[in-house]
Amino acid sequence: MTSSELQEQFNLKAINLLQEDADKIQQLIEVQMENLATRYCPLYEEVLDTQMYGFSREVDFAVRAGLVPEITGKMVLSKLERNLAVLYEALNNKAKEE
Amino acid sequence: MTSSELQEQFNLKAINLLQEDADKIQQLIEVQMENLATRYCPLYEEVLDTQMYGFSREVDFAVRAGLVPEITGKMVLSKLERNLAVLYEALNNKAKEE
Repeated sequence: MTSSELQEQFNLKAINLLQEDADKIQQLIEVQMENLATRYCPLYEEVLDTQMYGFSREVDFAVRAGLVPEITGKMVLSKLERNLAVLYEALNNKAKEE
Repeated sequence: MTSSELQEQFNLKAINLLQEDADKIQQLIEVQMENLATRYCPLYEEVLDTQMYGFSREVDFAVRAGLVPEITGKMVLSKLERNLAVLYEALNNKAKEE
């Protein structure tokens, strides 16, 4: 393997791992969105915040280790943050209705 | 650069970054140990737990990305965990004295 192939392999592996972890958080968000009306669990926000923090540390590490461009890391994080904000807004509206 | 040099460079970079972050947590532990008698701040435990969680996610990512052998990751983490346990025991003894 040439060094540029190896570099590419590391980069791909890292971005795939990050995407995998982002997908898990996205799934948590979606489950909570679906259950907005029926089974709201207050611990969910805590879990999501903790997961987001852990994920942001992973992304930060991947960027510092030279595996993922900073802009890619920021994009993955901010996409999740936007989805999380939508969920929290929906939760807020729900709370106001009650 | 050959691919094995590149591999080595990635591994070294990753382990240095992890050591850097482990040192920061170790410093937090030491500051709290020194201030056991004088300026105990209850938020410190919360901060340390959060930092440890974030760090464990970094280590896990580095292992999965193929940058650090699993055994190395475990060693870095368990060393910190031991030091943290010593701090918590000292805090517990302190609490009993009061």
